Amino acid sequence: MSLHPTISSSRVDGTNVYNLAGEKLGAIDDLIIDKRNGHVRYAALAFGGFLGLGSDRFPLPWSMLTYDVEKDGYVVNLDMEQLKSAPRYAEDAAPAWTEDYGRGVYAHYGAAWGV
Amino acid sequence: MSLHPTISSSRVDGTNVYNLAGEKLGAIDDLIIDKRNGHVRYAALAFGGFLGLGSDRFPLPWSMLTYDVEKDGYVVNLDMEQLKSAPRYAEDAAPAWTEDYGRGVYAHYGAAWGV
Repeated sequence: MSLHPTISSSRVDGTNVYNLAGEKLGAIDDLIIDKRNGHVRYAALAFGGFLGLGSDRFPLPWSMLTYDVEKDGYVVNLDMEQLKSAPRYAEDAAPAWTEDYGRGVYAHYGAAWGV
Repeated sequence: MSLHPTISSSRVDGTNVYNLAGEKLGAIDDLIIDKRNGHVRYAALAFGGFLGLGSDRFPLPWSMLTYDVEKDGYVVNLDMEQLKSAPRYAEDAAPAWTEDYGRGVYAHYGAAWGV
């Protein structure tokens, strides 16, 4: 099998993120990994002040990110309504990633927990 | 629950790696992530020319890394005999991470595949 559907963490950080309309939302700023089993719990989306959302980080379930070769970036199905009430944190104030917090993030986006 | 057993990918990259004897082997240079499910397939250990192992990268199953707070680094159970025959690649020549290749890496270290 010649498929190799993997990606380097250093290539994920800084990768642009677009919405379904093709508008640039921001970029992935970090990945948060479960120490015990090596699963990516979330990717941190930084808006960079765009859309009036400041420099907060928005934790996104990994499964929301779809890589688009032409855009050389991730496309996510995110609308402003979802974002207004979405979990977020200041760049220098990452939350304790408890199970409760994690489940809240996944639930907000309707993503399956525990994968 | 106040536990938060997570770590940022940006904190993993560059973290020192020690053997059981406390000798510094090198540092984690990169994480390779399965695009489909967000699992860390391996951490790339760079020896930095130490031990005559050149600048090759050694892919290690995530489960081999145990974080040591005092050392502020990972401790791995690695001996020279294992390393001499271990999968490795040049920094600029990462292999296609096929399932066969991945299974070979995990088998070399006796790690369970598929977690």
